[in-house]
Amino acid sequence: MYIDLSHGSGGKQTSSLIHDIFLKHFDNETLNKLEDAAVLDIGGRIAYTTDSFVVTPMFFRGGNIGKLAVCGTVNDLSMMGAKPKYLTAGFIIEAGTDMNQLDQIAQTMKEAALEAGVKIVAGDTKVIEGSGNVYINTSGIGEILKEGVSIQNCRPKDAILLSGNLGEHHAAIMSGRMGIENTISSDCAPLSSIVADLLKNGIDVHCMRDATRGGLATVLNEVSESSHCRVEIDETSIPISREVKGFCDILGLDPLYMANEGKMIAVVPGEQAEAALAAMQQNKYGENARIIGDITEGAGVYMTTALHGRRIIDILYGEGLPRIC
Amino acid sequence: MYIDLSHGSGGKQTSSLIHDIFLKHFDNETLNKLEDAAVLDIGGRIAYTTDSFVVTPMFFRGGNIGKLAVCGTVNDLSMMGAKPKYLTAGFIIEAGTDMNQLDQIAQTMKEAALEAGVKIVAGDTKVIEGSGNVYINTSGIGEILKEGVSIQNCRPKDAILLSGNLGEHHAAIMSGRMGIENTISSDCAPLSSIVADLLKNGIDVHCMRDATRGGLATVLNEVSESSHCRVEIDETSIPISREVKGFCDILGLDPLYMANEGKMIAVVPGEQAEAALAAMQQNKYGENARIIGDITEGAGVYMTTALHGRRIIDILYGEGLPRIC
Repeated sequence: MYIDLSHGSGGKQTSSLIHDIFLKHFDNETLNKLEDAAVLDIGGRIAYTTDSFVVTPMFFRGGNIGKLAVCGTVNDLSMMGAKPKYLTAGFIIEAGTDMNQLDQIAQTMKEAALEAGVKIVAGDTKVIEGSGNVYINTSGIGEILKEGVSIQNCRPKDAILLSGNLGEHHAAIMSGRMGIENTISSDCAPLSSIVADLLKNGIDVHCMRDATRGGLATVLNEVSESSHCRVEIDETSIPISREVKGFCDILGLDPLYMANEGKMIAVVPGEQAEAALAAMQQNKYGENARIIGDITEGAGVYMTTALHGRRIIDILYGEGLPRIC
Repeated sequence: MYIDLSHGSGGKQTSSLIHDIFLKHFDNETLNKLEDAAVLDIGGRIAYTTDSFVVTPMFFRGGNIGKLAVCGTVNDLSMMGAKPKYLTAGFIIEAGTDMNQLDQIAQTMKEAALEAGVKIVAGDTKVIEGSGNVYINTSGIGEILKEGVSIQNCRPKDAILLSGNLGEHHAAIMSGRMGIENTISSDCAPLSSIVADLLKNGIDVHCMRDATRGGLATVLNEVSESSHCRVEIDETSIPISREVKGFCDILGLDPLYMANEGKMIAVVPGEQAEAALAAMQQNKYGENARIIGDITEGAGVYMTTALHGRRIIDILYGEGLPRIC
């Protein structure tokens, strides 16, 4: 069965779609009420964010657009030192979408939400003309666990940690799009538990960012600009799997600019670098974590290369890979 | 200048787009920080909702997709007895979109947000292939002003009020799409001030709903189903402008099923009906408010027609008008 424009009318078919797919999977007391808005109890300081997802192909090794939509917003909240609590999900569905695919996407969202400990408490569906693509917006609310975690908060002598291998989401999407056979799987994952582990171990995290569109290079440039500091990293310390490295070599890609969906940097006081690394490596999503560099006085992002050269790491210019997330 | 895929890369062009259009208009301390999530202070009970907007044409008499995107979410929060406080805005922009149009949309959102007293505190942009359409998702957070306002909360002897003329948004969109010349203007408006007026005047509102997709008929059916009651309305009491009535007569449309973007029902205790009506009529968006019926024991939605007949008002079946909001 396929979606047609009547599923977006606000009438009977919209109601069936909502009940048969979304309520079935997202089932919770708040959402089930089908009010105009969810009513929630949440105290004090919150983090609040939104993200839209337009990835193509919608299904790829290691996940699908629904998993991205949950993890992406969970990660944005986590990066602010917040515990993700509630999500909304807005679906823009093209006519011609296969109901079974939509069901699978919703099922994956349910599983990802369960793992990340969030509830999907409000939603919306719209149907447009088209040929079977689905676009998903999620917004999210989290409770702030630690104040002052900010991209503006990095200081000289801070250490920079990276939670694991670069480039896997990007390589998985490219492989899917180009029909290249390999075993590279997207790293798409909720990072909320790594953040909880860092905070539980008393790490005074100054800044966290997930390295999505634009990759590690873009995130490090944002750190440098927002905190008015220089970022120094060491190429040999940056973890990349052999398979992704081979993929990049063949296609001439730079892993520093490739998108990730389950990797973050944490900028922590230099003296806590080893403790933070240990906390990250205990987590299943941080096994390959490394200390990759530090913050100094100055400006810009610099990398000491494997051949002991020095390279300026600029912000991404141009289109990178469109519709990566 | 037009949007191309590079504006969605996460790199330099994305950054220009965000600064030159969105930050310029939405300018506020929280958003300007460009963190992964906004950090907000909000106490206790909140309402939380999301809505996506795909209306075509994007510009119409009385508004544009940006005004809809702000008012739609503001209204969903208001209908739960909440004071809207914060919005997020997620843009999915097709390549080929005219930057000037995008600028105009953002400008309108800024004005609507100002009127409704909300701040746009987080955002996201994605670019997809296409031919110049823009899709906007907004989510919103409000502070609950009155507990227990719910679609499940209507009781026999409650009165039903409608805040004004039906069908204007629907007729304006259809006119735009069909190239019909008339002066019908969308009723798109924030309803937060009507809700504030009702509560300020001590009205014990049981339920509020804005009559968007599917129209008044759909909302009344939701009331009947969720509150397990019968809804009785009187056709002669339902306000419709002469021009919309003429438009409907020519095209064979039923105003009860037509979408509105600035009209709501309020279900209030029968003895407060007149006081609620007075409160609504004082508001500039409620001048044409009427008491249109009441709640009784039973099930279903019934209308006494102008000719003293009795008609069952069923839920919309089929596609109505796709992409109306």
